[in-house]
Amino acid sequence: MPEFLSLVTPQKALEKLFSLVNLEPKREEISTDRALDKVTAYDILSPQDLPDFRRSTVDGYAVLAKDTNGASDSLPAYLQLVGEVNMGQPARLQLGSAECALIHTGGMLPENADAVVMLEDTQLLTAGEIEVYKPVAPGQNLIEIGEDVSAGDVVIPRGTKLGPAEIGGLMALGITSLETAKPPRIGIISSGDEVIPPYQVPTPGEVRDINSYTLGSLIQKLGGIGVHYGIISDSRDEMREALAKGLQECDHLIVTAGSSASARDLTAEIMNEMGEPGVLVHGLHIRPGKPTILALAGSQVMIGLPGNPVSALVIAQVLVKPIIERCLGFEGSGLLPALDAELTVNISSQSGREDWIPVRVFKDPTGKFRAEPVFGRSNLIFILVRADGLIRIPPAVTGLEAESTVTVHLFN
Amino acid sequence: MPEFLSLVTPQKALEKLFSLVNLEPKREEISTDRALDKVTAYDILSPQDLPDFRRSTVDGYAVLAKDTNGASDSLPAYLQLVGEVNMGQPARLQLGSAECALIHTGGMLPENADAVVMLEDTQLLTAGEIEVYKPVAPGQNLIEIGEDVSAGDVVIPRGTKLGPAEIGGLMALGITSLETAKPPRIGIISSGDEVIPPYQVPTPGEVRDINSYTLGSLIQKLGGIGVHYGIISDSRDEMREALAKGLQECDHLIVTAGSSASARDLTAEIMNEMGEPGVLVHGLHIRPGKPTILALAGSQVMIGLPGNPVSALVIAQVLVKPIIERCLGFEGSGLLPALDAELTVNISSQSGREDWIPVRVFKDPTGKFRAEPVFGRSNLIFILVRADGLIRIPPAVTGLEAESTVTVHLFN
Repeated sequence: MPEFLSLVTPQKALEKLFSLVNLEPKREEISTDRALDKVTAYDILSPQDLPDFRRSTVDGYAVLAKDTNGASDSLPAYLQLVGEVNMGQPARLQLGSAECALIHTGGMLPENADAVVMLEDTQLLTAGEIEVYKPVAPGQNLIEIGEDVSAGDVVIPRGTKLGPAEIGGLMALGITSLETAKPPRIGIISSGDEVIPPYQVPTPGEVRDINSYTLGSLIQKLGGIGVHYGIISDSRDEMREALAKGLQECDHLIVTAGSSASARDLTAEIMNEMGEPGVLVHGLHIRPGKPTILALAGSQVMIGLPGNPVSALVIAQVLVKPIIERCLGFEGSGLLPALDAELTVNISSQSGREDWIPVRVFKDPTGKFRAEPVFGRSNLIFILVRADGLIRIPPAVTGLEAESTVTVHLFN
Repeated sequence: MPEFLSLVTPQKALEKLFSLVNLEPKREEISTDRALDKVTAYDILSPQDLPDFRRSTVDGYAVLAKDTNGASDSLPAYLQLVGEVNMGQPARLQLGSAECALIHTGGMLPENADAVVMLEDTQLLTAGEIEVYKPVAPGQNLIEIGEDVSAGDVVIPRGTKLGPAEIGGLMALGITSLETAKPPRIGIISSGDEVIPPYQVPTPGEVRDINSYTLGSLIQKLGGIGVHYGIISDSRDEMREALAKGLQECDHLIVTAGSSASARDLTAEIMNEMGEPGVLVHGLHIRPGKPTILALAGSQVMIGLPGNPVSALVIAQVLVKPIIERCLGFEGSGLLPALDAELTVNISSQSGREDWIPVRVFKDPTGKFRAEPVFGRSNLIFILVRADGLIRIPPAVTGLEAESTVTVHLFN
């Protein structure tokens, strides 16, 4: 019998990997309007002050604040209207004492104006004069130069995934292209004499390939590129050839092993042939997913996943995700995707082993999130379809009690 | 002064819209391996049992369970090994009494076998005989036909966003293409005499277009297609022409108005010219984002957003997101993206008005999530870059206390 002589936790496996290989992101230049969900490859500095002119935040009159001192309904201040600032135009006016200029939201303040009176706090008398009923302080109802960001500020740190706000911020600064992390190419090899492409009709004993597609989708979701190498049989020559090709064409490689123990051992043997240092971890102290292999050929990571689709997808979340994030230089916010919920039942677990349990999350009548385990054998892909995420039972814990709060790591 | 005579909450505005127009998703056929994040347009039924043959879950021997009754270390059961089931092959063997067949994980059970003994609970004696040290019950160590799903089961309900597990489940069933909701085309028109494309260098008084890109990115993230119509000036003719063109080419339309009150009123007037019933809502009881317009030309939705980029993006989250989700038929799980956190400070709010406050989320030393408001004028796009999400203060609430628990609607 093959034995997993030295099972390690996923955390230890990753530490070992990252201590041996530097998965620094490669960079690629990308147009900002196509950069949604890309990860910044360096700290982005603002090339300018934003705004770079003083802007009104209201519709009203640009004034010298001191001219409105003490203004009230009963004792308004009177100001001479000397012009209008047109949108998108420089304010060429100079205000003299007790003068004002009509200004619109977003308009540029005349050079010596220091506040804006809101339209609703004024009354236009005859052409050329307004009454002001409320005093304004210097700086009121305007945005100062650099109030959003100043030239030289780090506006977006490296390792940030760009969302709509970041894309807008870059455009505001005229940064219309930038370097982001190049998506790592991850080769996907499915093996198993029983596995056929989903486009074929299985004869008795055959099953359709699931892993290539669950893994390919997850890699895509995480910002990588999954490269499919199809299904190979559990033969030594075919596997050696496929791994060598995959390593040549991709950054890293995932092999889902055939289901049997001998097929898994074959995968580890071939990985050892691919280069030094070879297999780092053979067997994780985790359920599901114990028969996982982690190997290195030079600086290329090879991951052998269990053939069973639930185990493969769970390990992909636990082990492959942090590797891809490392390749992207993504400094995960740690905020997402997770959610706290109250467990509906007791769950037992073996001490020393890390357990990941698929759960469905629902809101109970009081509005509280509750997590209900979706039990079933780990071969059943629709268990994961019915689940919303996974909960982790750490190695040192022997079980979780009903009504305890658990963190659900959501799939979507 | 323009007045918002009848401000309504975003919730009421959406109810009014959805009561007037049926935003049923259009469908498109798509290959399953490209369907990640697409939304199913109908209930997907399983065309078959899964698995469709009985599979072993372990490496071992297929047996008749009764032949192992009472087996123990001291008194093993003896079985005759009559063959091996090869992976991917139909099991053509028939087991006689006290006979067994070697089988691998995932292999097909011989027709009359009803359990599998694990390899580690046996000993191979001479070729042709094994000792069994543990009894197995009928059904043990195998998956029954249809144990994952049965033919005719709804395996994925309509309105589901397809993740990696769903993609894998479809492939397992041989569903290699399906109809999903067609992404709605949303035209985006930016207006304002002060707005220039981000590729240009602004002269004093000009600002770069932010809204086209924040909105385009958000629409893309939500599963729609943003169609850019560039920047138009605050002129009646130009706006009329742009809206008519956008309505002709797209499903729905977003117009970010110039910042001034008169520009906003112009937008509403032109929308009314585009068709019946015209403007439904002019002004939301919300901060930021009061000057929002919701209109209909036939069954085409027109949304007028404030020119200020923070307000525009907040309203896009609050109002545009549910409209796009409705167009996709997406039955949001309600699980994401949100997170509960403890507020760091008191926040006051005006009764009757709904407030949305940008917050940064961090973990305090005890591991608790805390939400800290990012205050600032709503014109500053980098406020949203610094924030992780928004919290909502409902209309009936006049403020939130420090240390109360709030739900943060995350951006990513």
